[in-house]
Amino acid sequence: MTAADGAARRGVMTTAHGVVQTPAFMPVGTQGAVKGVLPRDLAGLGAEIMLSNTYHLHLRPGDDLIARHGGLHRFIGWDRPILTDSGGYQAFSLGERRTIDERGICFWSHLDGSEHLLTPERAVEIQANLGSDIAMVLDECLGYPATRDEAASSMERTLRWEKRGRERFLGLRAEGGMRKAEGRPSALSPQPSAVFVTNPGQAQFGIVQGGTHIDIRVASAQATVALGFEAYAIGGLSVGELPETMYEVVQATTPHLPEDRPRYLMGTGTPADLVESVARGIDLFDCVMPTRNARNGQLFTSEGRLNIKNARYADDPAPADPACGCYACRRFSRAYLRHLYVAGEIGAAMLNTLHNLTFYLDTMRLIREAIVFGSLEKLRLDYCRIFARRPVDS
Amino acid sequence: MTAADGAARRGVMTTAHGVVQTPAFMPVGTQGAVKGVLPRDLAGLGAEIMLSNTYHLHLRPGDDLIARHGGLHRFIGWDRPILTDSGGYQAFSLGERRTIDERGICFWSHLDGSEHLLTPERAVEIQANLGSDIAMVLDECLGYPATRDEAASSMERTLRWEKRGRERFLGLRAEGGMRKAEGRPSALSPQPSAVFVTNPGQAQFGIVQGGTHIDIRVASAQATVALGFEAYAIGGLSVGELPETMYEVVQATTPHLPEDRPRYLMGTGTPADLVESVARGIDLFDCVMPTRNARNGQLFTSEGRLNIKNARYADDPAPADPACGCYACRRFSRAYLRHLYVAGEIGAAMLNTLHNLTFYLDTMRLIREAIVFGSLEKLRLDYCRIFARRPVDS
Repeated sequence: MTAADGAARRGVMTTAHGVVQTPAFMPVGTQGAVKGVLPRDLAGLGAEIMLSNTYHLHLRPGDDLIARHGGLHRFIGWDRPILTDSGGYQAFSLGERRTIDERGICFWSHLDGSEHLLTPERAVEIQANLGSDIAMVLDECLGYPATRDEAASSMERTLRWEKRGRERFLGLRAEGGMRKAEGRPSALSPQPSAVFVTNPGQAQFGIVQGGTHIDIRVASAQATVALGFEAYAIGGLSVGELPETMYEVVQATTPHLPEDRPRYLMGTGTPADLVESVARGIDLFDCVMPTRNARNGQLFTSEGRLNIKNARYADDPAPADPACGCYACRRFSRAYLRHLYVAGEIGAAMLNTLHNLTFYLDTMRLIREAIVFGSLEKLRLDYCRIFARRPVDS
Repeated sequence: MTAADGAARRGVMTTAHGVVQTPAFMPVGTQGAVKGVLPRDLAGLGAEIMLSNTYHLHLRPGDDLIARHGGLHRFIGWDRPILTDSGGYQAFSLGERRTIDERGICFWSHLDGSEHLLTPERAVEIQANLGSDIAMVLDECLGYPATRDEAASSMERTLRWEKRGRERFLGLRAEGGMRKAEGRPSALSPQPSAVFVTNPGQAQFGIVQGGTHIDIRVASAQATVALGFEAYAIGGLSVGELPETMYEVVQATTPHLPEDRPRYLMGTGTPADLVESVARGIDLFDCVMPTRNARNGQLFTSEGRLNIKNARYADDPAPADPACGCYACRRFSRAYLRHLYVAGEIGAAMLNTLHNLTFYLDTMRLIREAIVFGSLEKLRLDYCRIFARRPVDS
């Protein structure tokens, strides 16, 4: 941590593939590619870390294949830090006929119907094969809303899984370096025949759960910290609850996480969510919103959201965001961007994605500056105004 | 012309937006965007000129809108030379219920069913609005195969249209500069109320027709040259005839075109077609093949065509083309490119397009060098071998 403004923190996170200035936003490359932008351009935008999805890569092209190709960084042409999720959330939401028991998550692939068992240990091994810089521990995904009892027992299971996941992670680390493959890992075996540790410097983050129940969240945070991970995430939010509820849970949780470790709010959020959550002590974010919305023609701008498909932009010579310095805004008009979108041109997705990622990364730059200058509260009120959301007491 | 090797010519073409080293290949940006590559990257690949389609831009977003936005270069963010076709070919092939008479081509838009009459004069005016550096005169598209009589009478009509098109072009040039808009041009009026000449330095190319009938081609060439255009194209080829037939027509036509003007073979072709046609005196090409095939997973490489979707590449760590220096080949394996393609990732289209355009532009560089060093015949035989085509006597 290098500076603070209230609960907000300005820091630097060190990983095996370099440092990340925090608070930071991680663009999402679900299948090993951030949709609509090539890695060189993503780096050019100033993204210092990206996220990729364990579930998708495990099923296709396979984490064993990626390990044989030298790990995820080399395979996807991105040499900056990568965080991978545990695969649990997608196994739960995308897998077919999935069942959860104490062993883990049993699911049938949405691609070919094949059967898989994702255990806490397998989640570690798959991510060891991938060689991400930050691996996430497997947690249980709790539906929303959930009763107190549901939240408590799910949180307890998550803790048991976290303990198993951490043990497997430390076991692999102790074995050290890269082990030779003795055969292809079998999807249904909790003890695959081979794991390549393609990134010996990998870190593992624990995850706080507990739904919207503050006392369960606090207990989860304390117990997860007691297990001892390199850093901690808050999971199970942005799942349907009100923003105010999410902020409340974040605010109650962060004081129970170590001050010297980054805190990651998973799967969030809107530009306003970023500022609100930083103000409550969060350092890392990921969200598909800037890239997915770009492909649907929704642009984030310094004046709010803009739907480029709207007929009002058909003859508009202004850039998408007059305050933006990205290539899309420097060289093209709203009229052209709308033309590309209406004409179904692939360039629409490319330019809109460039812009939205620029907006998100610029937002993080503004946040980092504001923390240093002690002006985060002003930025927070600006973002609430621009994105038409009532400011939330922090 | 700066060098020659047999009938092949090494030259420099000067346009209102800069010079083009010839022989040159023009990537196709049908709707004002080359699919899968942003203008800055297209320039980075060394493309010195691109083609865009009058029919598409006239219907959407409208050439009048583009004129109000300062012309096509400014609208699409490309400041190097642009050639626009006349719109005739697409009106003929995409328009619904199209009929052709002496006035021009009457068609119903494939987008909204609206009725349009594309006359030789309108084709000039639309391209004046677009402000391309090279405008093509409207010609009649002859089906293949065509009898002698059909070819002769179609060629005669093309000549009458070329005369009208040239007159309108010279009329606009004589009026000079930009005229103020007095209203929106009406699609059905052959005398639209306003034309913006957004590029006073625009040139106009005539088009030689005549099907596969050599004597009609020669007559067309001589009569078109007599009309006096800035340069000349060969149209109506690559429409289903054998490559050998196309080369024969090209070889018989080029001697009747002025030596000091570029010669453009429209809508061609394969890598082998490029070399074969340059060897017969062609200087300019356009084709959707590198970009369209890229989106379908077909890559052009120094070892021939490669279908990246093939399962044999699933675990292949080699670059698509080991001899290629493009970003896709420098940083990514066939295994990754196949993964992107199979996973339906937009990055597949982006990287494959980068590579295929690099291959086409590199081919033109090799051709230009070979002409200077007098080794075009060797290059021609190489390309015939690589692309498994029997060499054709030239």
